[in-house]
Amino acid sequence: MKSGGVAFGLRPGTRGRQISRVGVSPGRIAIVGSGAIGLFYGAKLAVSGADVHFLMRSDLPAVRERGILIRSEDGETRLPKAQAAGAAEEIGPCDTVIIALKATANAALENLIPPLLKDGTALLTLQNGLGNEEFLAERFGLERVMGGLCFVCLNRVDHGVVEHYGHGRVSIGEFVGPPQERTHAIANAFRTAGIDTEVVGRLMNERWRKLVWNVPFNGLAIAAGGATVEDLLGDSGMDDLVRDLMGEVITAAAAVGESIPEAYADYQVERSRSMGAYKASSLIDWMAGRPVEVEAIWGEPLRRAKNVGCDLPRLDMLYQLLRNLTVSQE
Amino acid sequence: MKSGGVAFGLRPGTRGRQISRVGVSPGRIAIVGSGAIGLFYGAKLAVSGADVHFLMRSDLPAVRERGILIRSEDGETRLPKAQAAGAAEEIGPCDTVIIALKATANAALENLIPPLLKDGTALLTLQNGLGNEEFLAERFGLERVMGGLCFVCLNRVDHGVVEHYGHGRVSIGEFVGPPQERTHAIANAFRTAGIDTEVVGRLMNERWRKLVWNVPFNGLAIAAGGATVEDLLGDSGMDDLVRDLMGEVITAAAAVGESIPEAYADYQVERSRSMGAYKASSLIDWMAGRPVEVEAIWGEPLRRAKNVGCDLPRLDMLYQLLRNLTVSQE
Repeated sequence: MKSGGVAFGLRPGTRGRQISRVGVSPGRIAIVGSGAIGLFYGAKLAVSGADVHFLMRSDLPAVRERGILIRSEDGETRLPKAQAAGAAEEIGPCDTVIIALKATANAALENLIPPLLKDGTALLTLQNGLGNEEFLAERFGLERVMGGLCFVCLNRVDHGVVEHYGHGRVSIGEFVGPPQERTHAIANAFRTAGIDTEVVGRLMNERWRKLVWNVPFNGLAIAAGGATVEDLLGDSGMDDLVRDLMGEVITAAAAVGESIPEAYADYQVERSRSMGAYKASSLIDWMAGRPVEVEAIWGEPLRRAKNVGCDLPRLDMLYQLLRNLTVSQE
Repeated sequence: MKSGGVAFGLRPGTRGRQISRVGVSPGRIAIVGSGAIGLFYGAKLAVSGADVHFLMRSDLPAVRERGILIRSEDGETRLPKAQAAGAAEEIGPCDTVIIALKATANAALENLIPPLLKDGTALLTLQNGLGNEEFLAERFGLERVMGGLCFVCLNRVDHGVVEHYGHGRVSIGEFVGPPQERTHAIANAFRTAGIDTEVVGRLMNERWRKLVWNVPFNGLAIAAGGATVEDLLGDSGMDDLVRDLMGEVITAAAAVGESIPEAYADYQVERSRSMGAYKASSLIDWMAGRPVEVEAIWGEPLRRAKNVGCDLPRLDMLYQLLRNLTVSQE
């Protein structure tokens, strides 16, 4: 693979935090999970020259025949010959394993990951919410684990075919401790693939920040029976509820040591006003009858806050309702 | 009509509060609204000899042809020849007007009530929640208004046909002030009709007590996507949420001067465990696509509590969700 050019401070969203270390490569990469996230980032990486191996189930025949297609306003990305396998054993040990399964399918990782491991294999979870890094660390070793947050609007519309509606930025960090050479290496590989990528020093703080948006907008979208961002912000009672829930997430984050300024809620609300009739990803899953990541997005933040004596009535209620409204296991 | 026998302290649920005053009659009675409540209590009153006139719309042809039928485990109640009218003018002035419309249809009362009025006409609302007495008092005079709470499981299954699943107790009181002769007279007419009836001194306290049950069980039934009482109490997270909501209603009641003991919530939860897969009335309405009394049951209690500075996060959230999940106007 190409190790990637460096452009200090030139890319939006990078905030100058990363120190690029050209020459360290993420090496052989496995993508576990061929939903929209796995296909999108995996295909971008592969097209840019990275050695990417896709582990997939339902998409395998179509991808072997036609490859992967990303459709976007910016144009198409085609990977005509994807290295795709139906079993982890076919792929074998890798340097970097990118986990893009739904968190609701985490149990499957117990069997999928081991054949991909060797000494020094890094595990990068691009999954939503809280608890995924811990899940991997407990089973495969703390030192392997990295996490990434994807700020992207995608939908897998057919086997091997993803619609990209906008954005795409990724924030990557170590689960424990500051960024390492490998953190910068994988970030550079993402950048080489044309993805706006940031290396973050405090991954958990970033995860809590993302929850400030996901908890109300993904949750109320379902609990209100199918509400878009516009529906939620266009109703003064629901708009207040969005803000109250954001406030509870910020309170919870502070209670577990992750400080987020109060004004971040206002920023997220104002930013969301331009999203129009956008359907949050959990709403799309719910409408399609697919599992919703209830534990990762609502259950785990709630439990962590409760463990430190923090009472969050709205988040608690939303979690209870979502548990009852959704399918939560694959 | 018969003015009814008296049985001091013999009937369950009467708690010996009423002082029966035999000889005062509710006279000519109009029933406004021919849903399950209006048909059930109206037919019972008429069969027992009261002079009952039904004001109805959609049920009129069927009731004129076949009368009213109440099916119950205890047997059937038939009123083969009901005095039924399609316009209030056909009925004309009455001594007692019993209002059994959905609260969501209250706007219609502005035209339906005036032709039924004369000096001294009493208005007895059997509607759910808060705000119905006030609605009537503002338009037709405070002194006319009485209220009743119905503890009964009914469903109107066809025009003029009601299924009675259990219970039937009614609590009747004056909107303002202690029970009067007319309060006892109408209560006695209900008792003569075989209905377990109590005269209450503090109607609003009774209304808040009923909300302790209705707010969580009717509301969560819908918000959780169609949950029965058994579903709600069988899930430990939802069971806690039911209790938390009950606690908020008790807090709200106290804030507006209506004291309810905390233990009342436990009593209601334990009592409900025997109800099994019971569908709360609002759930039945919601599943049938009918309007739900969101303002009377959730909105008005919330507003009254907010007006006295009482913050109720769960009730607020439930109200916002229900507003978005339901049809609220006929």
